Amino acid sequence: MEKIIEQAFAVPFRYQVCFLEGIFDLTNPLLANFLDNGKKAKAFFVVDNGVSNAFPDLLKDIRDYADAYQDKFILSAEPLIVEGGEISKNDEATFKKIVDATSIFGIDRHSYIVGIGGGAVLDMVGFAAAISHRGIRHIRIPTTVLSQNDSGVGVKNGINAYGKKNYLGTFAPPFAVINDFNFLTTLDDRDWRSGISEAIKVALIKDIGFFEWLEKNATALANREMAPMQELIIKCAQMHMDHIAGKDPFETGSARPLDFGHWAAHKLEHLTQYQVRHGEAVAIGIALDSTYSYLKGMISKLDLMRIINLMKALGFGIYAHELSGKELLKGLEEFREHLGGELTITLLEYMGKGVEVHQMDSDLILQSIDQLKLFHQEKVVADS
Amino acid sequence: MEKIIEQAFAVPFRYQVCFLEGIFDLTNPLLANFLDNGKKAKAFFVVDNGVSNAFPDLLKDIRDYADAYQDKFILSAEPLIVEGGEISKNDEATFKKIVDATSIFGIDRHSYIVGIGGGAVLDMVGFAAAISHRGIRHIRIPTTVLSQNDSGVGVKNGINAYGKKNYLGTFAPPFAVINDFNFLTTLDDRDWRSGISEAIKVALIKDIGFFEWLEKNATALANREMAPMQELIIKCAQMHMDHIAGKDPFETGSARPLDFGHWAAHKLEHLTQYQVRHGEAVAIGIALDSTYSYLKGMISKLDLMRIINLMKALGFGIYAHELSGKELLKGLEEFREHLGGELTITLLEYMGKGVEVHQMDSDLILQSIDQLKLFHQEKVVADS
Ligand SMILES: NC(=O)c1ccc[n+]([C@@H]2O[C@H](COP(=O)([O-])OP(=O)(O)OC[C@H]3O[C@@H](n4cnc5c(N)ncnc54)[C@H](O)[C@@H]3O)[C@@H](O)[C@H]2O)c1
Ligand SMILES: NC(=O)c1ccc[n+]([C@@H]2O[C@H](COP(=O)([O-])OP(=O)(O)OC[C@H]3O[C@@H](n4cnc5c(N)ncnc54)[C@H](O)[C@@H]3O)[C@@H](O)[C@H]2O)c1
Ligand SMILES: [Zn+2]
Ligand SMILES: [Zn+2]
Repeated sequence: MEKIIEQAFAVPFRYQVCFLEGIFDLTNPLLANFLDNGKKAKAFFVVDNGVSNAFPDLLKDIRDYADAYQDKFILSAEPLIVEGGEISKNDEATFKKIVDATSIFGIDRHSYIVGIGGGAVLDMVGFAAAISHRGIRHIRIPTTVLSQNDSGVGVKNGINAYGKKNYLGTFAPPFAVINDFNFLTTLDDRDWRSGISEAIKVALIKDIGFFEWLEKNATALANREMAPMQELIIKCAQMHMDHIAGKDPFETGSARPLDFGHWAAHKLEHLTQYQVRHGEAVAIGIALDSTYSYLKGMISKLDLMRIINLMKALGFGIYAHELSGKELLKGLEEFREHLGGELTITLLEYMGKGVEVHQMDSDLILQSIDQLKLFHQEKVVADS
Repeated sequence: MEKIIEQAFAVPFRYQVCFLEGIFDLTNPLLANFLDNGKKAKAFFVVDNGVSNAFPDLLKDIRDYADAYQDKFILSAEPLIVEGGEISKNDEATFKKIVDATSIFGIDRHSYIVGIGGGAVLDMVGFAAAISHRGIRHIRIPTTVLSQNDSGVGVKNGINAYGKKNYLGTFAPPFAVINDFNFLTTLDDRDWRSGISEAIKVALIKDIGFFEWLEKNATALANREMAPMQELIIKCAQMHMDHIAGKDPFETGSARPLDFGHWAAHKLEHLTQYQVRHGEAVAIGIALDSTYSYLKGMISKLDLMRIINLMKALGFGIYAHELSGKELLKGLEEFREHLGGELTITLLEYMGKGVEVHQMDSDLILQSIDQLKLFHQEKVVADS
């Protein structure tokens, strides 16, 4: 007897991504309403110490807010402060502390874990929430440009293991995301800038109009003007979300158009032990793949210069000596392994349109990095 | 500025559940075809030692099969043998060994982890596969009645932590499930019988015809006849799968109709430190909730006797002294906590139809357990 039953179903996911200022203003019930599960939900807060150091009143604000909305939710325990940045994804003890807390404080599937912090802390907290009780409701409050416009609005979480980035993790949509722009005021310049590279990325592969907008607003963004940054974040978050909703949200295939510029970036982050920020590395990765696209005859020299000059205007480095030719080629192979299937790299078909290729020419990669080194030394790149 | 973006999408899942005999017959390409990803997939096998002890040739069979189909897949390493039973879900070291192996042997998102064993080993292996690389393809080869007709065909995995059952886990559909009936021949009587309780469960809440079929085949099943067991497993697996596909596959709500009889079962498993098998505990839980349904006036005495007599004919115990009134009431509260939201218990509206209730009467629970104790002492229960 041989018999086969086909199983097929679709699991619907739905969440809101909000943009505002003053999430803990006592007059703003938004967060409390998310936390309201009809029976005094328990909420457990995990806070990036970069944020709590920058906002010394934050913990008090959280407590006051909980007091004001105690009919809707209660704090299951004092907020847990964890070290911000990549270390939070490397340190198993921190991760374990959060999983432990869910058990100790009885955070169940109808309770909430609220993460406040940069992309690294949110990735780590999200993973802890995803596996405890097979998934506790998770609210993300991203506090960096990168986490507000990219990492925090998506469906992935993870921690590093075996020296490999995001080795452990799941696909787990958040319960809600609340982007409070006020947090951005205390970012240091590198973190302010860093996330902008993800906007350049989506603009280059999807929307030339947005790229032109970035060119126009580059100086204002570099000067840390808040209005264009808010506009950038909303636009960029929307584009990332549309992409995720569009096709293969849980990335079962090998295609990853949103990883434009990321293969070299991953290698550079690793080589510098995460001293280079994700967004900074992505900027260099984009510069590299754009140069490669130019050398392949896909975009013009003028197009390439626009990209390089935009990055320079924003203050990005576009070259790093750690990215030797040898390391780059190794990085390409690692990226292929990481994808698992076929190598799939996004290049530029033209400005505003990405295209997938399944192999890259080693010689051209080496030429690209040499070219970038030259560009890097010039102040503004002129047509030659 | 306050703005909200709504995100909504559905993630499609699809997998096949196969029933056969002789999965490693060199002439049967079924498994090899699942493993064939177009570029010599790596497959890593994890085997329950209860199975490898019962089938001393199993490892050789796996190697021979891999040799025969080396154009489709390769073994990434020697199969890993792990201790079977609940201990595999309690022992973090075993779990970690599998996650480590994915890194050491380069098992990526397009490679496969194949689990062969009972429900416990499959739950544990499934969890390791689910979080490594955010999800490695996982093929389940269930080898017990319970795992073939219930746990192995569904979407949940998990391990125990903090003394709590399935505390860590995810919802992660398998890549494929292959039920090989030959494995069932070596089960000890308790494991042969145990999984039948899940069939009684779905029959009572969904399909009176299936219940009647069980009554007719009780003696044959108790005598370990294979033909009715195969029929039972296919029917029961199909019903579980239909249920999962039907509504809320990832259990976001509090309703869990498939947990009929399970609230007391969980408590009993825990109280006996898993000396009582899941299916054995479920049988007692079903007997309890059926008795409660009778005392509530929902089913007749005659109906209740049919249920009790079926269980007796199959050799199930229907009472356990560990389930004192006090422990039972505690178990009910724990189940409510476990669900997170409102208490939701399935009782019998009538034979073949479950109904959800949101509270249970403590006195009637105590009466039910006393009643069960009496039934337990009688050989066959007669109408009084
Ligand atoms: N899950 C995803 O889909 C996804 C996508 C892209 C990137 N990521 C991950 O995101 C991480 C990078 O995130 P990031 O760029 O936000 O950096 P980060 O999380 O490493 O934070 C950078 C620094 O800023 C501090 N900080 C955070 N908020 C602050 C604030 N408001 N004021 C002052 N300091 C503050 C942090 O403490 C940290 O020291 C990486 O681990 C990357 O892998 C994840
Ligand atoms: N994921 C789910 O949806 C789900 C649903 C129900 C139950 N479960 C879990 O399933 C587990 C129980 O599974 P189970 O009933 O299969 O028992 P089990 O996995 O504990 O196995 C029982 C014993 O049988 C041995 N064994 C397995 N196959 C054998 C074979 N072919 N021949 C001889 N011995 C064999 C094992 O080594 C073990 O000692 C529990 O942990 C329970 O929580 C999970
Ligand atoms: Zn990125
Ligand atoms: Zn069960």
